This record gives sequence, structure tokens and C-alpha cells, in this order.
Amino acid sequence: MNDRTRSRDAHLAETEVDSETVFDGKLLHVNRDRVRLPDGSITTREYIVHPGAVLMLPVRPDGKLVLVRQYRYPLRRVFLEFPAGKLDPGEDALATARRELVEEAGYTARRWTRLGVIHPLIAYSTEAIELYLAEELEHVGAKLDEGEFLEVLELSVDEMLDRLDRGEVTDAKTVTAFLLYLRRTDMLDRR
Amino acid sequence: MNDRTRSRDAHLAETEVDSETVFDGKLLHVNRDRVRLPDGSITTREYIVHPGAVLMLPVRPDGKLVLVRQYRYPLRRVFLEFPAGKLDPGEDALATARRELVEEAGYTARRWTRLGVIHPLIAYSTEAIELYLAEELEHVGAKLDEGEFLEVLELSVDEMLDRLDRGEVTDAKTVTAFLLYLRRTDMLDRR
Repeated sequence: MNDRTRSRDAHLAETEVDSETVFDGKLLHVNRDRVRLPDGSITTREYIVHPGAVLMLPVRPDGKLVLVRQYRYPLRRVFLEFPAGKLDPGEDALATARRELVEEAGYTARRWTRLGVIHPLIAYSTEAIELYLAEELEHVGAKLDEGEFLEVLELSVDEMLDRLDRGEVTDAKTVTAFLLYLRRTDMLDRR
Repeated sequence: MNDRTRSRDAHLAETEVDSETVFDGKLLHVNRDRVRLPDGSITTREYIVHPGAVLMLPVRPDGKLVLVRQYRYPLRRVFLEFPAGKLDPGEDALATARRELVEEAGYTARRWTRLGVIHPLIAYSTEAIELYLAEELEHVGAKLDEGEFLEVLELSVDEMLDRLDRGEVTDAKTVTAFLLYLRRTDMLDRR
């Protein structure tokens, strides 16, 4: 936050009084901070501390999109998603994207374009997801991590729109990336 | 999950062995489960247990969208968002939407249309967000909860698209709802 933002948003800003780690798990790290509200009163904020993630929207030379089907335990069902992955410590987003696209989907890409960034859950996570368009793909075969089970599938833009309109694609990062891609390519109103 | 889904996705599904609450905070509730993977091995899954939420996309008679600016402590800055709120225990989604639209934005709406549901963070939260279009608005004045500080603002669709294209709108639920609304109204490629 620069000085201009800080002064413009002073009537909204919350400032840290102190911070403690209240859960330090294998996957999740939860902080609880005491914060000062704009009116001077004190409250607590609990939130997940996350290293950040990337999503890859891979487009094959025939225009088909590469997706994965993966069981998501918190919601106890399989979701249709674009491949994605968490940043390793010190790893930059594009390096993560290149690594995860091979590991999960089995493709390398010669052309990478950043589509933007989204924040999936601003109420209680620091997570940011960098979105990348991956083109000029070459299939090299997936190398799943141990304990990782997923299915790779290819869908045309029309098939993906059908599934979206039927409510079958609800993963927020996937919906956002798909719609931003369609807007970019002027394909959203073509049908 | 019905029987057909279960058998079709058996090669992907993870089943609960046992479950414990490992953090029970004021806002966040974290479970850690032991789960059996498709190959029979055992691993742990940590995730937030969330009651669900609603997002309201309010459109005024002049076509302007009603948004809020709110400081989001985990990311230490103000975000531009559609009004949203968490379900109270036993409260249905539309009742929450009606309540939160008045509390946060100061509007009642005579016409409500469900736009769909999104899952903001399938990797580590059970949260689902029901998306509602709110039309035929009447301004009655906001009734913010104690300790809640936010600014209401109105933007035309073009202004919102500008901000989206400049990367100034990154809250995933807001981006998704906006693009779904534009797709619904065939406005997305008009500029």
C-alpha cells in the first residue's frame, strides 16, 4: 500500500496490533491477529497464510482446452478444473506453471501469456492465483506426484460453455480463467 | 454422490477414515481427516468447514451496478466487490441475500434471479457461494454491523469492464459474477 492509498483508504483500513500462528498443519497455516479498526476499536482476524498458486489454461493447436478431473475432498466430489498448483518456496509463478503443466496434464508449452491474477477468498486467505494461457503445446506425458490421482480431458470452447451454462463448472478459478480467456479472444458471445 | 457417480469416479474418490476438529476459532473451523486414496494408501486432508455464503449483483434501474469497497485484512488492502455475506445457521441463501443487501449496501430488491453457484477454494474449503442478480432496487440506507466499515459505490458496466481489463478487480467471486451476468445479458462483447 503506497502513501496515497493509505491516506485515501484510512477510513477503511485495519492495522495489525499483534499476530500469532494458531494452527500450523501439513497443508494449512492459520494466523490470528488482533487488529485495530478504523474507529479505534480492537477485533480479531483469523486467516490462512498461503504461498500463492498458479492456474494454467492450456489451448491445443486444434483449439481444445486441456482440463483435469480431480476429487476434491473438502466438497466430497470430483471437479472439472484447469490444471493448477501451489508455488514451492522461492519458486516464481511461471516456473511453477511450467512444472505443474507437465506434472498434472503432461504438456509442455512454448508460448506463455499472463492473463492476470485473482484472489479466491479475500475474507480468510492470503492466496493469490496467477493465471496463465499456455499455447503451442507438446504432449510429453504426465508425471503425477505420489498420492495424486486425476484424469486429463480435452474440451472444445463450445463444450466448455455448455457445461458452464448447465452449472457443471463451479470451481471459481476455472470459471474466471475461462471467461477471461473468452473475453480476450472475443469468443464469449459467439453462441 | 449418487451410485452412478460413485462407480464412475471410484478411481479418483477419497474416502474418510476419521475426522477431527484441529482448530475451532471465532471465524475459522479447521478439520483434519485421515482419508483413503484410490490406491488404498492413507493420507491427511486439512480444510476449512464453512456454512456457505451468498453474493448479490445489484443492478439499479439506470443499469449501474452497486459495489462495495472493503478492507480485506488477510491481503492488507481494499478490494472492490459485490456485496456478499455468510449464511447464518439455518438461514436459506435467498433470505441471507435479502438481509445482506440491505445491511451492506442499503438496498432492497423486488426481483431476484439465481445466477448459479461457485466454489471459491475447492482445495481447502467447503465454502459454496450462491450468486444472485438483484433488480428493481429501492434505496433504504445501509445498516452496517458493528465493526463493519465499507463504502458503497455505483459503476456502469463499461466502468466495471475498464477496471477488470486494468487488473483492478481481482476478487474471484466478483469477477465470476460480473462475467456470468454479462454473458447472460449478451453484453460482454459489445465493446
